[in-house]
Amino acid sequence: MFIRNAWYVAATSQELADKPLARTLLGEKVVLFRGTDGAPTALEDRCCHRLAPLSLGDVEAGGIRCRYHGMKFDTRGQCIEIPGQDSIAPGMCVRAFQVVERHGFCWIWMGRPDLANADDIVDVHWNRAPEWPTASGYIHYKANYQLIADNLLDFSHLTFVHRTTLANAALVDARPEITAFDRGIRLNRLIVACDPSPLHGMAGKFTGKVDFWTRQVWWLPSIFENWAGSVPTGGTGEAHERAGGLHLRHFSLLTPETAQSTHYFWVQPCQFPHNEPGMIEKVGKGIDTAFAEDRWMIEAQQVVMNDSPDVKPKAIRADAALGRVRFMIDRLLEQERAASPA
Amino acid sequence: MFIRNAWYVAATSQELADKPLARTLLGEKVVLFRGTDGAPTALEDRCCHRLAPLSLGDVEAGGIRCRYHGMKFDTRGQCIEIPGQDSIAPGMCVRAFQVVERHGFCWIWMGRPDLANADDIVDVHWNRAPEWPTASGYIHYKANYQLIADNLLDFSHLTFVHRTTLANAALVDARPEITAFDRGIRLNRLIVACDPSPLHGMAGKFTGKVDFWTRQVWWLPSIFENWAGSVPTGGTGEAHERAGGLHLRHFSLLTPETAQSTHYFWVQPCQFPHNEPGMIEKVGKGIDTAFAEDRWMIEAQQVVMNDSPDVKPKAIRADAALGRVRFMIDRLLEQERAASPA
Amino acid sequence: MFIRNAWYVAATSQELADKPLARTLLGEKVVLFRGTDGAPTALEDRCCHRLAPLSLGDVEAGGIRCRYHGMKFDTRGQCIEIPGQDSIAPGMCVRAFQVVERHGFCWIWMGRPDLANADDIVDVHWNRAPEWPTASGYIHYKANYQLIADNLLDFSHLTFVHRTTLANAALVDARPEITAFDRGIRLNRLIVACDPSPLHGMAGKFTGKVDFWTRQVWWLPSIFENWAGSVPTGGTGEAHERAGGLHLRHFSLLTPETAQSTHYFWVQPCQFPHNEPGMIEKVGKGIDTAFAEDRWMIEAQQVVMNDSPDVKPKAIRADAALGRVRFMIDRLLEQERAASPA
Repeated sequence: MFIRNAWYVAATSQELADKPLARTLLGEKVVLFRGTDGAPTALEDRCCHRLAPLSLGDVEAGGIRCRYHGMKFDTRGQCIEIPGQDSIAPGMCVRAFQVVERHGFCWIWMGRPDLANADDIVDVHWNRAPEWPTASGYIHYKANYQLIADNLLDFSHLTFVHRTTLANAALVDARPEITAFDRGIRLNRLIVACDPSPLHGMAGKFTGKVDFWTRQVWWLPSIFENWAGSVPTGGTGEAHERAGGLHLRHFSLLTPETAQSTHYFWVQPCQFPHNEPGMIEKVGKGIDTAFAEDRWMIEAQQVVMNDSPDVKPKAIRADAALGRVRFMIDRLLEQERAASPA
Repeated sequence: MFIRNAWYVAATSQELADKPLARTLLGEKVVLFRGTDGAPTALEDRCCHRLAPLSLGDVEAGGIRCRYHGMKFDTRGQCIEIPGQDSIAPGMCVRAFQVVERHGFCWIWMGRPDLANADDIVDVHWNRAPEWPTASGYIHYKANYQLIADNLLDFSHLTFVHRTTLANAALVDARPEITAFDRGIRLNRLIVACDPSPLHGMAGKFTGKVDFWTRQVWWLPSIFENWAGSVPTGGTGEAHERAGGLHLRHFSLLTPETAQSTHYFWVQPCQFPHNEPGMIEKVGKGIDTAFAEDRWMIEAQQVVMNDSPDVKPKAIRADAALGRVRFMIDRLLEQERAASPA
Repeated sequence: MFIRNAWYVAATSQELADKPLARTLLGEKVVLFRGTDGAPTALEDRCCHRLAPLSLGDVEAGGIRCRYHGMKFDTRGQCIEIPGQDSIAPGMCVRAFQVVERHGFCWIWMGRPDLANADDIVDVHWNRAPEWPTASGYIHYKANYQLIADNLLDFSHLTFVHRTTLANAALVDARPEITAFDRGIRLNRLIVACDPSPLHGMAGKFTGKVDFWTRQVWWLPSIFENWAGSVPTGGTGEAHERAGGLHLRHFSLLTPETAQSTHYFWVQPCQFPHNEPGMIEKVGKGIDTAFAEDRWMIEAQQVVMNDSPDVKPKAIRADAALGRVRFMIDRLLEQERAASPA
């Protein structure tokens, strides 16, 4: 059901603490914690003894202790202590997942261990980097991650869903240039001499027409990178390379929770063409508002789909990008199925 | 599961506005709205593009626009605009249902379009008519409509469920005269020289014995008409035609929502043998109380039935009318099934 | 799914009143009430007429009357009155269950009537007996009763779950002596010269080391008797027979509600080696706290088990007693299945 051979965000660095964090990821219950040495660990959240959740337990040096009968597991999931018992049967263990902490996130790999390569983690180094004031957030979504992906891949909805925030009248007719590559697709748009959207106008303090660009990447299966910006119209050179521009480096990082729910992490590192204080907070608020509008629509859509499982959507021209990504995801799922032992 | 070739109340006239109303009827999600020309429209509440509910959209001249990607549908359900796209594929449409606004209600036909005939709509012209002060209400019931029908068709429950409102000690032994006709059954009762029920006593301000009548019609599948009244005992001629009587023209209009829930609309136009102000409000309050008593019992009954799906009720003599109506409904369902294409 | 040939607690004596009590027991809805003669009755909570719950009805001399259409049933479940009808068909009845009121509880037998023998009811005569101040409580558990049984049968969890109440550091290594008998198992423990648990220390007002004993019986299928106590160390004779001891006569009486929920009744009659007033309330509070800790863990465990129905627990040495009881229960279920008609 989910692509497993991929790095997903399991938690933010701030969420990882010495108290265990219980989280369902790709349909599996996982306990996450930062060990006494500071390193993150992710284990199956189910003691192998009588199936109590380890996330009710306590982090100790070298591992976690189940709160029910006191069995202790190390960071590889091996049971290393059973109170009142000297020997431990070799099968006494829980599954451990590879985790990497990078750029403010704890990334998890839940697929075939031999395929995990930390170099494949999507680069989000702008997150809270110097010179990049960053807004961020987390949304728990009652919808399948692909409905959210559809939304992010078709900006024609901005005019209708986001009237007061992201709407840009010119967007409806500005079809992006779409290019596939081995890890997903790229979508580039440039709209010259348009009125800025409410958000760009506010964040950039633009008084006239702007050239507006989005340079987006959909990283399979479920990370959306959107370098969007505006710059006063009329200069020379590529809009996104001219001075005086507003730069919004957005990442939407989707991690399936279940078939019907999604962990939605987002970060928005910005560079402003001015020094007005408090602007990053205003941008964060704008994103919050816009994403609440999306959620209102997408969760309602999920309810309708559940009620009519046999009804197929009918495509329009604006679905080009989302159709391609859905096709790519289906192909990856197919490959994983074919490669997995029966 | 439901009889489809029938007119059901979809909403009251007051509920129909320029903001779309989402309502599940016979298990299907429907969006209802009053167009800019004042006429009611009912469409499948599911955009054919990506299945977002149209009820989140906006009513415009000539139709409704989906709030997600801006597709516009006319009142026949045909898509007439796709933003950013010139041509529209012919299959881009949603299902439209025939609706008729009459006597304060918006009636919907969800069956075979060729069988719809507005002359078949049950006559409720007393509703808010001149000289007929009218109480009314809506109840959302967590029970199948047939359990509510059973209740309305067997007044022997009045003595036990409605002790303080509708109970009439004489009712238990006053079996109604039942006559079938092509659209349902009629039940007539006359109890001479009895004490009025608490409700009739209050509404009619009777000080002595009354002759009490009910002239009821069960309109298949799910509308209950009850012309009930009381008049001081002792006159000549038919009780319901004598002067000085209290007339309660009740309609219970049941529209299945799902197999487990029902929209229950009711109106109670009255004529009183006096001019005391505020009496219609008191009658409305009495009905509210009595119907809350029914709901308490029927929703509990539904829970028991769900828990014991294999247990069959055992009939008593008072079940004559409800047994007949259930038989008629089963026959109609059978006919619809037989006539529908496999 | 449940052992039916057994006496279970259906309610406390205080709960039984002239108002009917609705309770689900072994997956069946039962109505319990105390008749006008004071005797308890338990009937199927489903009128045979149209399946309304009898628990909404009224207790009358000789039986209970359904609130819907007024049918009256006697304490054997036979319908003895149908309003407006002279004769009653012989099949008009609901199932009646044998009940016995004893030692403050109403006990129910839901199995084969010919096997019921009130002598088999577990002896809880200490409950509110003279000289035995008694704390008691009821917990509604969202877990299968066998998970609670597992918990009560393995005291190694005390150290981890009940840190501030029942924990006794010596318990982890003090394996009980286990003896099977025809009705279950007995577990005896004696720990000499240990520090008292927080609860025993508080209740016994001990200032030094104690000898601590538990003499437990698991009565199949689901009653736990635990005669626990402490006495200052150093005397002669069996610890539980020496003077100056604290005696806690605990009973946990589990009655399955559904496969996923349990009625948990408990009583804790005590004898203290002092006369300090208010001590029984403090003991009751301590038990409340400890049982809330258990519930927190066990309900979480049930959720995990529901999520992973195919995962089997892996046994450790401390599971000896619970493994035996589970084996005995499986054998009893097997016997009941074999004896029941196909």
